[in-house]
Amino acid sequence: MSTQTTPEHHLEEAGHAPYSPGTTEWDASSLTERYAEVRGFTEQLASPLSPEDQTVQSMPDVSPTKWHRAHVTWFFETFVLAENEPGFAPFQDQYWFLFNSYYEAVGPRYARPDRGLITRPGAHDVGHYRGNVDTRVGELVATLDERRLNGLTPTIELGFHHEQQHQELLLMDIKHVLSRNPLQPVYAGAPLDRCEPDDVGWVDVTGGLVEIGHRGGGFSFDNELPRHQTWLEPYRLADRLVTNGEWLEFVADGGYERADLWLSDGWNLVKEEGWQAPFYWHSPGNADGVWLEHTLHGTWPVNPGLPVSHVSFYEADAFATWAGKRLPTEAEWEHAVVEDGQADRVVGNLADRETFHPRPASPAPVGSRLRQVYGDCWEWTQSAYHPYPGFQAPAGAIGEYNGKFMSNQMVLRGGCALTPPGHARATYRNFFPHRSRWALTGVRLADGGVPGQVAR
Amino acid sequence: MSTQTTPEHHLEEAGHAPYSPGTTEWDASSLTERYAEVRGFTEQLASPLSPEDQTVQSMPDVSPTKWHRAHVTWFFETFVLAENEPGFAPFQDQYWFLFNSYYEAVGPRYARPDRGLITRPGAHDVGHYRGNVDTRVGELVATLDERRLNGLTPTIELGFHHEQQHQELLLMDIKHVLSRNPLQPVYAGAPLDRCEPDDVGWVDVTGGLVEIGHRGGGFSFDNELPRHQTWLEPYRLADRLVTNGEWLEFVADGGYERADLWLSDGWNLVKEEGWQAPFYWHSPGNADGVWLEHTLHGTWPVNPGLPVSHVSFYEADAFATWAGKRLPTEAEWEHAVVEDGQADRVVGNLADRETFHPRPASPAPVGSRLRQVYGDCWEWTQSAYHPYPGFQAPAGAIGEYNGKFMSNQMVLRGGCALTPPGHARATYRNFFPHRSRWALTGVRLADGGVPGQVAR
Amino acid sequence: MSTQTTPEHHLEEAGHAPYSPGTTEWDASSLTERYAEVRGFTEQLASPLSPEDQTVQSMPDVSPTKWHRAHVTWFFETFVLAENEPGFAPFQDQYWFLFNSYYEAVGPRYARPDRGLITRPGAHDVGHYRGNVDTRVGELVATLDERRLNGLTPTIELGFHHEQQHQELLLMDIKHVLSRNPLQPVYAGAPLDRCEPDDVGWVDVTGGLVEIGHRGGGFSFDNELPRHQTWLEPYRLADRLVTNGEWLEFVADGGYERADLWLSDGWNLVKEEGWQAPFYWHSPGNADGVWLEHTLHGTWPVNPGLPVSHVSFYEADAFATWAGKRLPTEAEWEHAVVEDGQADRVVGNLADRETFHPRPASPAPVGSRLRQVYGDCWEWTQSAYHPYPGFQAPAGAIGEYNGKFMSNQMVLRGGCALTPPGHARATYRNFFPHRSRWALTGVRLADGGVPGQVAR
Amino acid sequence: MSTQTTPEHHLEEAGHAPYSPGTTEWDASSLTERYAEVRGFTEQLASPLSPEDQTVQSMPDVSPTKWHRAHVTWFFETFVLAENEPGFAPFQDQYWFLFNSYYEAVGPRYARPDRGLITRPGAHDVGHYRGNVDTRVGELVATLDERRLNGLTPTIELGFHHEQQHQELLLMDIKHVLSRNPLQPVYAGAPLDRCEPDDVGWVDVTGGLVEIGHRGGGFSFDNELPRHQTWLEPYRLADRLVTNGEWLEFVADGGYERADLWLSDGWNLVKEEGWQAPFYWHSPGNADGVWLEHTLHGTWPVNPGLPVSHVSFYEADAFATWAGKRLPTEAEWEHAVVEDGQADRVVGNLADRETFHPRPASPAPVGSRLRQVYGDCWEWTQSAYHPYPGFQAPAGAIGEYNGKFMSNQMVLRGGCALTPPGHARATYRNFFPHRSRWALTGVRLADGGVPGQVAR
Repeated sequence: MSTQTTPEHHLEEAGHAPYSPGTTEWDASSLTERYAEVRGFTEQLASPLSPEDQTVQSMPDVSPTKWHRAHVTWFFETFVLAENEPGFAPFQDQYWFLFNSYYEAVGPRYARPDRGLITRPGAHDVGHYRGNVDTRVGELVATLDERRLNGLTPTIELGFHHEQQHQELLLMDIKHVLSRNPLQPVYAGAPLDRCEPDDVGWVDVTGGLVEIGHRGGGFSFDNELPRHQTWLEPYRLADRLVTNGEWLEFVADGGYERADLWLSDGWNLVKEEGWQAPFYWHSPGNADGVWLEHTLHGTWPVNPGLPVSHVSFYEADAFATWAGKRLPTEAEWEHAVVEDGQADRVVGNLADRETFHPRPASPAPVGSRLRQVYGDCWEWTQSAYHPYPGFQAPAGAIGEYNGKFMSNQMVLRGGCALTPPGHARATYRNFFPHRSRWALTGVRLADGGVPGQVAR
Repeated sequence: MSTQTTPEHHLEEAGHAPYSPGTTEWDASSLTERYAEVRGFTEQLASPLSPEDQTVQSMPDVSPTKWHRAHVTWFFETFVLAENEPGFAPFQDQYWFLFNSYYEAVGPRYARPDRGLITRPGAHDVGHYRGNVDTRVGELVATLDERRLNGLTPTIELGFHHEQQHQELLLMDIKHVLSRNPLQPVYAGAPLDRCEPDDVGWVDVTGGLVEIGHRGGGFSFDNELPRHQTWLEPYRLADRLVTNGEWLEFVADGGYERADLWLSDGWNLVKEEGWQAPFYWHSPGNADGVWLEHTLHGTWPVNPGLPVSHVSFYEADAFATWAGKRLPTEAEWEHAVVEDGQADRVVGNLADRETFHPRPASPAPVGSRLRQVYGDCWEWTQSAYHPYPGFQAPAGAIGEYNGKFMSNQMVLRGGCALTPPGHARATYRNFFPHRSRWALTGVRLADGGVPGQVAR
Repeated sequence: MSTQTTPEHHLEEAGHAPYSPGTTEWDASSLTERYAEVRGFTEQLASPLSPEDQTVQSMPDVSPTKWHRAHVTWFFETFVLAENEPGFAPFQDQYWFLFNSYYEAVGPRYARPDRGLITRPGAHDVGHYRGNVDTRVGELVATLDERRLNGLTPTIELGFHHEQQHQELLLMDIKHVLSRNPLQPVYAGAPLDRCEPDDVGWVDVTGGLVEIGHRGGGFSFDNELPRHQTWLEPYRLADRLVTNGEWLEFVADGGYERADLWLSDGWNLVKEEGWQAPFYWHSPGNADGVWLEHTLHGTWPVNPGLPVSHVSFYEADAFATWAGKRLPTEAEWEHAVVEDGQADRVVGNLADRETFHPRPASPAPVGSRLRQVYGDCWEWTQSAYHPYPGFQAPAGAIGEYNGKFMSNQMVLRGGCALTPPGHARATYRNFFPHRSRWALTGVRLADGGVPGQVAR
Repeated sequence: MSTQTTPEHHLEEAGHAPYSPGTTEWDASSLTERYAEVRGFTEQLASPLSPEDQTVQSMPDVSPTKWHRAHVTWFFETFVLAENEPGFAPFQDQYWFLFNSYYEAVGPRYARPDRGLITRPGAHDVGHYRGNVDTRVGELVATLDERRLNGLTPTIELGFHHEQQHQELLLMDIKHVLSRNPLQPVYAGAPLDRCEPDDVGWVDVTGGLVEIGHRGGGFSFDNELPRHQTWLEPYRLADRLVTNGEWLEFVADGGYERADLWLSDGWNLVKEEGWQAPFYWHSPGNADGVWLEHTLHGTWPVNPGLPVSHVSFYEADAFATWAGKRLPTEAEWEHAVVEDGQADRVVGNLADRETFHPRPASPAPVGSRLRQVYGDCWEWTQSAYHPYPGFQAPAGAIGEYNGKFMSNQMVLRGGCALTPPGHARATYRNFFPHRSRWALTGVRLADGGVPGQVAR
């Protein structure tokens, strides 16, 4: 059986790609404050969930909530405390085994698909574990001298970003868990009023010999490096995401029935898995084109004005073909966003906790043209997730497995409605296997880019 | 993929085989009292388990604890209340779907392997459901006139036996759930002191043209009927179960490495699944013949004086071949136990709640010769689970699927350490697929039975 | 993956069950004559098949024609020549490995599902192998003294019966191979005219304490022994097999759509594998109840007057339930056939080589009442394939694996249109897994047998 | 089950990617001559194979020899004859179904993994089919007027290249078929003398803003278009392929045991499939580092001086990591080869039909520096098989599925020892899934390419 496309490695990888030391100025006080903020937010996200909710793994891609809560804690215990705390001893020996995600060098690991079999420690026990590690990290930060603290700060900062990635995953995962329940449980929030798509606009970009990748200054993961040149023909990008309304047209036009629109691998999945619509859409009685959508705020009629979400790369690509357009490359996306003045906006999402869901396109920021860049859906690109030219894995334990997930996955850019505040940026390279649908993914169309032509 | 040997159907079948109206005298008062007793015992068994413990399904054979608690409640709601309670309305519509086990006529069912995905209703919600149904059943019994109560009594009595079967399964299932946890959790109880096997004795039985099957008078399931004649050559049975000590000899003698001892299907499983010992034995480091056993009271060294448990039919058969003996037929077992004066002992187990585990052989009851008949391990026979001659499915909803599990399974007789008090009898036909190991099964050897010979 | 129901072991087992030395008088001349006859018939059956036809394995149950031709030759080489021929050397070392079917003691085996990957030796090479062994066996028989020849005769006679079983399998297997080809190739023969079922009659049998099993005198396999007593209530058997016409009524009445008719394991297969009719029936366009049937003489409309064939045990059982009847036990079948005066008819089939297919019921033999006993379809019984009481595996190499296939299979009695002449008898116990459909199986109904009643 | 990495689509795709009309001058005479040459070479390659050899499909990736022979014929019948031959009728209706590979628009297709079940038409029948189509194509070419012939010529030329691709695949496939046979059959040829690797040299390339893609003039597939600019940092390439000798060092150094060398998906395959060496290496007895290799000329000790072959992308990548190098991108490969003066060498292989196997590195062509560019092993690159910027699928039937295989595969460049004469060129983009090992693949290392640096 092929394992090439299991997203197993992706999930943790997202947070573990070694960081690039930035220019953010940290001291014990600001570190402690940020630590409390990030760690507290995890618990806030978990708080609507019962012990039963926090235990279940509804498919191998998904991890239980309490596993997420424990794993991010294990990260701090392993990479911050273990080598720095005087007289270190693990909170519980077996946790070392249970909550390691993929670090083979740290020791044997508990099989990922079996995470849902672990009834103990329970949700409450995980709370104890978190509290214990929080106390110890706090004491460590308070007592280290400046030189040692400075040495440790990048790892702690990485821990923040790691935990944020798991916050996003925690929400994607519990969304799937709850989707399997015929009682249609609500996590939180309420639906928006029905709205219609507005007109899409197109943003022209000149291209040429451009640079992409992180500039340094502030945090990045190592897969955003090194900054390097690439050549872009003139192209243009849609100024907003594809909407549910447009997707309904695609469905009505036989989008899921026409082999000619699909990549061959995608078409096989359409047939094998019976795809007829985005992942969380279902048609009660399958009769009359009425579609309901499972969301974190319950099951509701599909709202045509919202961005389509939970589509695979194959669906995104087939839609683009149907629309006579294409997906952007990651370089096109990044360059356009930077040109559009939205490069440095380390914006957050989840601010809109009314819905935990993508929202209709609102006007672009002042001076910008592109809408819905960060806060709605991770955007599929047509770029494989491969190392940048000259990519080098950092030395040391954390960097041990740099880049080991760079095969059989596609890059996504932007951010989504479940991305924690302060986590997204223009150079961020997210990635999922082509077939993934449970992640909060969407589609922005591109056009042009043809050698010897200018964008229409 | 073959489904012939999945034990899915077995579990519920155990309780759903329609009953034979017996001579037990019930009135509203005794029914109410027994109802409280049986229902309360289920909750008592679940009480050591956390919400997380009660949620997990560690393999398709296993059901979550809270599912057992809800399903047996659904049984009373569906078969007792729905057709008799004035103005009946279900407690919750979706429970009708979630907690039906296999009654296709009652409506669509939630897929068995997905029972562990249901986080809601939670363990606490199930308690509410149980309380609601208990109240309503109590009111119904208190208000029905005598004629209608008599008409309903067999169904209520069937509900008692159904719930008892799920009590046994609940314990077998949670044993498996906890076995997957590296923290080695304890359900309850403590180990016995190490002891050695005593000598096995052999009980001679004359046989001839004998009768087997339930005589009527008291409760039975329909698969124990009709009582009928069968011919037995003279044979003999071991007076106790095979012990761990004897099994250790089998292992040491290459029992799991010699193809000549095994049925072909069994040998394939030995190789494919890497069987080296009974299901819950494991050898730390695999080095030196030291075996530990997972039990409901934790993980402890294998105790040689206790009956071997959690072996498949194939292992039981291979052991018998190795020992130069064979397994008894179900007719031999039943006839011998009746002849031995233990036919009518509607004994219970679980009385010994110190260990939740089989115990060493103690002396036979006064006037009897066979030991360990009911309270330690379900005993594999060499009889396929087929209908008795003249077997007829009862009419009506409950009898709809009579006998539908009568293929690809073997009969087991007796009872086990997890069987609730008052549940076992000589004519009881339990059954599992040949390969099942998670049930509390053991081995009693037989000999003789050769045409034209007398037993040695 | 479960292996319990794979018919892998069955195929060879059919021929390898050690024999019971009979009273047949053999000498060098009659042995040589019979050897030529049996061996020649194999080649005759293979002669319409191209090298390509003889190479393919269309599913794991099926073996390639050239493998059958080589394997039965290997049997003589291994069990007759190897221990008796002076200066024995194998024809080709690797053949030892390639053409062993399941004898683990003889050495490692080539994986059964990979038999279709072996392009060499080709069909022509296998002919050379056969000729070589034939010559050597002939020389051995001609040169052994009487004492040694008498000692070897039972093994040679077993080789005859072994080869006959593979003749039957060769035809069942090539039927499946050709069924996968859209060109609808013909093996041989031509269809009969369309005919209608005649009336079924019922034969009453008194039963009581009867004996079944082989009496000795003539050849039998060891699974037919020992002869022993069993108790039968009065019963009756249909005097002919169920017809295609009756099966069409079953289909039209929703036979494959009503869960209540089926054993649970069978119903799961109906749904999983989409069963809608017997194995080789298909409905072009699936529209209007027109059914075609693949046969060895090509694809033709289903003929209502012929016995239904290629149904699984589950289908046979569901049909009997639908008809308000049941399947016979193997004891009922054998006792009735013996009582009917057809016990000793060592009849053959394949005599009717016009069709290589079951034929309409013709009148019973003079003085008998049961029709279609041996020459049309192997008849499913409701008896599991288990050892007879007192069954003992013979000593020695051939008996090494006696009875190792006695689990998860059902007994079939009689014979079929592909059974070679002289191969069937009343005590013969054939067996297949419940789900098998590619074998030439059919259905005879039974009734009565209820304790305390007489047959209607 | 994922289908993303099945090479099913690859095999045909190789030949079906629509062509770019070139400047080659064809007339009826030269077309006829080339047709005879290409078609005859297919039969020449098949001639050492028996009907049995030509029938077997040893895994889903593999097609039977006679299927290849028929499929390439079907291509001419479908795309050349069907729309141009007066009064066209197919040679055999069912062949339309059997020998279509993936053209969904042409009609339903026979399932790829079942190609090995088709015993008829046999190898000889396929010869008839080929002869019939050859005659008809010849007549058509001879009778068309110049305008119509010119219109048809590109399709005929595409048929040549299509057939050549299947010639290569035919050899790769039969190599796998024969590998499964314990008799170790030889296809043809004889081994070279043992030799040692010579020193590897490194070729520096300046890079910059370069162009890649086909220039027009002569044949190309559409995936080589459009020619476009890309930016390359200075880099260097090894002047020869990695050798068996170097791979033996990798194995001896624990190359298949060190997770840190592998991409995560690759490491999972190493464990799941037990990879310990290249695909066709095996170690008899697994004892002492002696490795044998299955080749088309039989099974022989691994020759250290030959290029390593039959390694997956994951193995190539792990080896490069172990060596402190990396794989080239496809742009780096193409640019370097063109710069090296080997761009226009439409060279062939298979010229060396002594071995049907890669050979030791010989000196580079005069004026060139890179060795083993075309004639030994297809070279893995680190580039995903994606459309070039501005790629457009041609209109019409043949172009229907342009680019539909552009996911989950990696580009390989060059050619191999089984590539037919005249088939390779610098811009040719071959592709296989990351895990493929049965294709004749090898490794050329790259270095440098780091932004802001020059190649070492």
